[in-house]
Amino acid sequence: MPTSPPRRLHLNAFLMNAGHHDAAWRHPRTQPERVTDLRYFQELARTAERGLLDSVFLADGLALWGKVRHNALGGFEPLTLLSALAAVTEHIGLIATVSTTFNEPFHTARKFASLDHISGGRAGWNIVTSGTVDEARNFGQDEHLEHGLRYERAREFVEVAVKLWDSWEDDAILLDRERGVYADTDKVHEINHRGAHFGVQGPLNVPRGPQGHPLLVQAGSSEDGKEFAARYAEAVFTAQQTLADGQSFYKDLKSRLARHGRAEDDLRILPGICPVLGSTEAEARALEQELTDLQVPEYGLAQLSGMLGTDLTGLPLDGPLPELPEERDINGNKSRFTLVAELARRDGLTLRELIARLGGGRGHRVFAGTPEQTADQLEEWFTHGAADGFNIMAPHLPGGLDDFVDQVVPILQRRGLFRTEYTGRTLREHYGLPRPGGRPSVPAAAAPERRT
Amino acid sequence: MPTSPPRRLHLNAFLMNAGHHDAAWRHPRTQPERVTDLRYFQELARTAERGLLDSVFLADGLALWGKVRHNALGGFEPLTLLSALAAVTEHIGLIATVSTTFNEPFHTARKFASLDHISGGRAGWNIVTSGTVDEARNFGQDEHLEHGLRYERAREFVEVAVKLWDSWEDDAILLDRERGVYADTDKVHEINHRGAHFGVQGPLNVPRGPQGHPLLVQAGSSEDGKEFAARYAEAVFTAQQTLADGQSFYKDLKSRLARHGRAEDDLRILPGICPVLGSTEAEARALEQELTDLQVPEYGLAQLSGMLGTDLTGLPLDGPLPELPEERDINGNKSRFTLVAELARRDGLTLRELIARLGGGRGHRVFAGTPEQTADQLEEWFTHGAADGFNIMAPHLPGGLDDFVDQVVPILQRRGLFRTEYTGRTLREHYGLPRPGGRPSVPAAAAPERRT
Repeated sequence: MPTSPPRRLHLNAFLMNAGHHDAAWRHPRTQPERVTDLRYFQELARTAERGLLDSVFLADGLALWGKVRHNALGGFEPLTLLSALAAVTEHIGLIATVSTTFNEPFHTARKFASLDHISGGRAGWNIVTSGTVDEARNFGQDEHLEHGLRYERAREFVEVAVKLWDSWEDDAILLDRERGVYADTDKVHEINHRGAHFGVQGPLNVPRGPQGHPLLVQAGSSEDGKEFAARYAEAVFTAQQTLADGQSFYKDLKSRLARHGRAEDDLRILPGICPVLGSTEAEARALEQELTDLQVPEYGLAQLSGMLGTDLTGLPLDGPLPELPEERDINGNKSRFTLVAELARRDGLTLRELIARLGGGRGHRVFAGTPEQTADQLEEWFTHGAADGFNIMAPHLPGGLDDFVDQVVPILQRRGLFRTEYTGRTLREHYGLPRPGGRPSVPAAAAPERRT
Repeated sequence: MPTSPPRRLHLNAFLMNAGHHDAAWRHPRTQPERVTDLRYFQELARTAERGLLDSVFLADGLALWGKVRHNALGGFEPLTLLSALAAVTEHIGLIATVSTTFNEPFHTARKFASLDHISGGRAGWNIVTSGTVDEARNFGQDEHLEHGLRYERAREFVEVAVKLWDSWEDDAILLDRERGVYADTDKVHEINHRGAHFGVQGPLNVPRGPQGHPLLVQAGSSEDGKEFAARYAEAVFTAQQTLADGQSFYKDLKSRLARHGRAEDDLRILPGICPVLGSTEAEARALEQELTDLQVPEYGLAQLSGMLGTDLTGLPLDGPLPELPEERDINGNKSRFTLVAELARRDGLTLRELIARLGGGRGHRVFAGTPEQTADQLEEWFTHGAADGFNIMAPHLPGGLDDFVDQVVPILQRRGLFRTEYTGRTLREHYGLPRPGGRPSVPAAAAPERRT
C-alpha cells in the first residue's frame, strides 16, 4: 500500500520595509535608506527563495498614516513590486494585497492574471476589505463602508473575478497560423455579470493563467472574515498569541469548510510569528530589549489608538488602558481589536507594556529564542492542530530573514518538517493545492457548429 | 559663445504582441507562442535598450475584442509588465497606457510613483480616455461616456494625480535614526481635492519619485485631444500619413502651447512609423506584400468597422466604402476616424485596398524601404518641422525591432541625428525635459513651529 507523503509545513515571508518591529528602522542592522530601492526587495525575495519558502507577501493600505513620522515607509504598490520580483526569481510565490472595497473586479482580475503569466504561475491575492476612513477619503467617500457591507461587496467581487479568470477555456488558443485562427472564440466567453455591486460583461482580455486562478488568501479573523475565508480562501494569515488560541481558531475555521462543500485540506492556516533570534536565549532577549528601547512611545500610542478605535493621546504611559468600546462598534479590523484588548486585560498590562508587546508584530506573536527553540515552537503549533505553516515576520530586515533562512529552516528540514528542494513550479503546487479546473470544455461532437 | 547641443531625435519602441502588422503572427519570422511569456518582452526591451532608444511603450484597452480570433494577444496589463521589464533593464524609459475613464487617480498616481521608484526614474504615463462601449460594459456602465465628458474627467484626473505626486516635498524624508524621525510630516501634505469627478484627501502613500512626475504622454489627435496635449502632455504619439499632414499637425499643436504658458520645446511630437525593412527596396516591398497576403479579410473588416463607427460586414471587398458618419457623431477615437476616412477618399481605395493599407499600422504610416531610405524619411520629417522623433512600430517582432536597431539606428547616429550613448539616467533626461519642481519647500525660518 503506498504511504502518503509526510505532512510538511508551509512558510511565507511577510516583507515589510525595514522589518516588522516598529523600531527596526532605527536599529543598526537595518537599511531604511533602501526601502524605496527595488534591489533591496529583490535581495529579500532571493533570500526567501534560497530558504525554499513557499511565498513572499506584501500587505497594503490605501492611505498614508501619520506613522510615517516615526517609521520607515517604502510604499511600493504590491502588484507592481511583485512583478519586478518575479523577473529575478524562479520559484518563490508572490502574494499581493488588493482591497475589494476600492477597486474594480475587471482591473484586479486582469492584474493577477498578468502577474500569474509573468511569474509562470506564482501569483497569490490577499483579499482585504480595507478598514479606515482615511482610505475611503482617497476615493471620494466621506465615511468608510460598514463592515458587513464590505464583506458583501468582497464576496461579489471575488465571484466576478473567478468568472473572469474562467472566461477563457484552457484550450482556447489554437495558434493556427495556416488557417489564420489564433483563438477559438467559441471558447472565450462573456460573463454578463449583473449584481448588487458590479456589472461586468467580460470576457477578460488576458488568456487563462498558468494557475487558472491565483492562490486566494485572506487575513481577517472576525466572524465575517472567517465565513469569507471558509468559502473562498485557500490560505489564511492570522494573528494568534497562544497555542490554545491558535488551536481554537484552527478548529473553528476548518470546521466551517464543510458547509461550503470544501474539505479541511482545501485551506492552509498560517499564524504569524515574529522570530527574534539569538545564538542563546539571553542574546535573543537582549535583541528584543534593544528594539523595545528604540520604540518611539507616541508612535506606539498612535498605532494602539488605531487598533483600539480609541484616542489614547495624552494618557499616562504607565497607567492602565481606559474603558474600550465593544467589538460590534468597531468598523475597522475587528479581530485585531479583540486580540489586543484581550491581551491587555489578560496580562494586566500598562499602556507602555502593551506598546512594547505589540512593537514586534502589531498583535502577531513575538517569540525570542534560539533557532532550536524557535523550531520547537513552530513544530509544536504544527503538530498540535494550530497551524499548517507560518507567516514569518522578521523583526528586522534584511538580517532577520537571513537568520531565519540560515538557522531555523535547516533545523525544520532535519526534522522532516520542511522541504529540502522545490518540487513544484507554481505557488499552488508549493502549498499542495490543486489548479482550479475552470469552465468545462464543450466536447467537439456536442458543441454547436462553430464559425471558422 | 557656447554653442547649444545639436538637436537630436527621440525614438520610442511601441511593443505589440507579434508585431504591428495585423498578420505578423502568421509570418515565419514571428513567435506568437511567446506573447504571454515575460522573457519575450524582456528581450524586446533589451533590444530597444541596445539601440539606445528613449523608451518602450505599451498600448492598452480594457476589453477583449473579437479580433483575438484572428490576431495574437498577450494581454499583459502594462504597469505590471513594465515593472518586470524595469528589473532587467537599466536605461530604457517605460511608458504605460492607463485610462482616466475607468480608474481612480489615487491608484494611478500611486502605481506610476511605484514604477518610477522601481525603475529609478524611467516611468511614463500615456493618458487615454478609452473609446469603446465594450470597455464601459466591463465597469458597470451600459453606454460609453461622451467624448467631451471623458476629456473633462481626464483633466481633473491628471490634476489630482499631479497634486498627489507633489504631496510629498522632495526633502520630506529625514531618516533621523537618532531622534526617531523618519519623515518630516510638515512636508507631507493632504491635498483635499474636491471636484466634479473626484474627492481625494491625500497625501499619496509613496514618497515623491525620482522624476517628480512620470513623463506625461498623450496620443489622441482630436480637437479635445490636442487641447489636452497642449496643456498637460510632454510627449505626443500621433498618426500622420504624409509630410504635409505631419507638418500641419506639428505646427498646430506647438502653437497651442503658449496659451497654457508653455514653450514649444516643452513638448515632443512623435509620429508613428511602421518601417518595413529590406536590404533592397524590392526586398522590402516583397516583405510588405508577404504580410498583406497573410491578412485575414474578415479581421481587417472588423478593425475597419471599429475605426469608422460603421458596420462593414458583408460588403464586397472590391467595392468602395459606404457613406460614412461625420466626425462629430463618432464617440470613439475621432482623429483615427478622420484619418482613415480621408485616406480612403483621397486615394480612392476599395475596402480590400484600405484593409491592406491599414494592416501595417492601423492608420499609422507604413514605409517600406532600405535602412538608408528609412533614415532619409525620418530625417526629412525631423528637419522639416513634422517631428521631434518617432514612435517605431515594427511590423513584425522580434526581428523587425532588431533590424531597426541594427540597421537604421547606426545610420541616424552617423548623421549626428541620434545619441551614441545614454547621457541621462531618467526618461525625462532622455527626452531632454526637466524634472518638475513640486511644492516649494517652506524655508525653516518662515515655517510655522514644527512638532518634533
